Amino acid sequence: MALRENRQVRLVARPHGIPHAEHFALVTEPVAAPGEGEILIENRYLSIDPAQRGWANDEGNYSAPVPLGTPMRALAVGEILASNAPEFRPGEQVFGWFGWQRYCVTTPDAVLRRVIPSRLPLSANLSVLGMNGITAYLAFHGLGDPKPGEHVLVSTAAGSVGSFVGQLAKIAGCRAVGLTSSADKAALAKARYGYQDMINYREAADLGAAIRAACPDGNDIFFDNTGGPIADAAIRTMRLRGRVIQCGTAANASWTPAPQGPRPEREILTRRLRWSGFIIFDHLAEFETAAARLAELALAGKIVHDEEILPGLEHAPGAIARLYRGENHGKLMIAVD
Amino acid sequence: MALRENRQVRLVARPHGIPHAEHFALVTEPVAAPGEGEILIENRYLSIDPAQRGWANDEGNYSAPVPLGTPMRALAVGEILASNAPEFRPGEQVFGWFGWQRYCVTTPDAVLRRVIPSRLPLSANLSVLGMNGITAYLAFHGLGDPKPGEHVLVSTAAGSVGSFVGQLAKIAGCRAVGLTSSADKAALAKARYGYQDMINYREAADLGAAIRAACPDGNDIFFDNTGGPIADAAIRTMRLRGRVIQCGTAANASWTPAPQGPRPEREILTRRLRWSGFIIFDHLAEFETAAARLAELALAGKIVHDEEILPGLEHAPGAIARLYRGENHGKLMIAVD
Repeated sequence: MALRENRQVRLVARPHGIPHAEHFALVTEPVAAPGEGEILIENRYLSIDPAQRGWANDEGNYSAPVPLGTPMRALAVGEILASNAPEFRPGEQVFGWFGWQRYCVTTPDAVLRRVIPSRLPLSANLSVLGMNGITAYLAFHGLGDPKPGEHVLVSTAAGSVGSFVGQLAKIAGCRAVGLTSSADKAALAKARYGYQDMINYREAADLGAAIRAACPDGNDIFFDNTGGPIADAAIRTMRLRGRVIQCGTAANASWTPAPQGPRPEREILTRRLRWSGFIIFDHLAEFETAAARLAELALAGKIVHDEEILPGLEHAPGAIARLYRGENHGKLMIAVD
Repeated sequence: MALRENRQVRLVARPHGIPHAEHFALVTEPVAAPGEGEILIENRYLSIDPAQRGWANDEGNYSAPVPLGTPMRALAVGEILASNAPEFRPGEQVFGWFGWQRYCVTTPDAVLRRVIPSRLPLSANLSVLGMNGITAYLAFHGLGDPKPGEHVLVSTAAGSVGSFVGQLAKIAGCRAVGLTSSADKAALAKARYGYQDMINYREAADLGAAIRAACPDGNDIFFDNTGGPIADAAIRTMRLRGRVIQCGTAANASWTPAPQGPRPEREILTRRLRWSGFIIFDHLAEFETAAARLAELALAGKIVHDEEILPGLEHAPGAIARLYRGENHGKLMIAVD
């Protein structure tokens, strides 16, 4: 097999908080041939996720930090070019831990699942059928326990997960209200993502009052991707026996030392809340079922998915910071050129 | 029926935070005869509970504030002297909302349950068979979901609820460690309440380090009656998928404005915690079953109950503050003289 030139985006400096372009380097080197039991994948789309901030940092986290000098950890979807593993054949499309690079030589355990053949575009495997759609589906239904007629509040409602939560809430017969950072995103979320009302938190002088105005009857479920002042205000609008789903903590760029906020324990007690953390990697066994159900909803036109695809690996280094600035519309990813 | 002199402890001033003796007045007046459908109860024991702080205050709470000029809201156990309600007869012993007073004229809905006839002393209906024992039982088993071999941390471990949680944890095959405010209480809790180890938080220079030393493998369940800095440290020792039971918030005397603390949302997320609030009054339907099970354990000598009984109604006004100073050993109550 002829040697191919690989392009990789490597983590070369340890960020404190949000990783910026200067923490990465674009490197070109030949691809090694796959060894015994290995596969060679050509990536088509690379995922940009809020969780990458945590992976790049070196603070107590739910997965080990990315070693310096290696390609940034990332989900990707690609095609198998060569296989020395019996369970994969060239031409198969797969989704998994293939990193920020054009080519990936790895073992089969990096593959999370084969791509479900459908009329959906390949990029859908990083959005509605990827971690975002599956996170929304499993967290909302698993921890949220939604019942028809319940009231749902969602932070980063126009974001990669929130855009699905609003739609799933509507499908479940709930009334969903979202929080977002611009009037454009608010309009988009109302038009496309199932939200009955939206709050632009950057324009709200009093966040608590803005939420109470949009949710006059309080909330049964708060699906939170941010934490911080939005969560402080939101949990103070919860109805009795409300469920708070902590799915991300994007509001704080650094957790060492722990930022301060108003204590929640009295709210948890008096409102009898159930506040749970959700991390998708605990739920790999439920993955295929969720993806199949989401594909069905997407193909039936019941759930839409918006993607912002940046053309070329050179956009990867600044993409996480872009995500945290809230500049993306829908799921942010990189098309490998 | 001859008129009886009633002695009442009335709330006469609205506290901000912990109610002290000066917020109450001891008043004597004749008891009215029970009207149609009413019962007359002679109280034997009156309960002193941390929740009375909230009932006396006028801040958003899980029950309406006690009106000024009325007997302090309290659980009590007593005997029916006269009944104009068909379901009760004189001589029956009952447990319910009879207030800080010797005699109570009320309607049957103030009765929570009849006293279970047993060899246990009547006061046990305010401790192991009262709100404390039942709270420990239902919160620990209902929200804690304990499994044999799991590690349990309990705040106010020598207190009215914590003294049962340690014993129930031990019966469930768990390893329990408790937090308390003195060496005496620590010794008592180790000797009598099922705790394998105890932490005197007043002597711990670094609370997190003290908990990690006593719980080197972390904790699966944190049963919290305090909130505040103890909870901050405790949740940072939780194992993956740990359960935090918020059963009280005694560490903070006032919640307006909300006191500040280190934000918990990152811990909830990365440790996949489930943090739930428990209030016993949501669980009246499970009450009889829990009391029967606890009576069985108490009669079999598998669970002990310590009570501190103050002799005479005149001790009631200062008793809530005494509880918050942590001076009691076991369940604090008043014997009506």
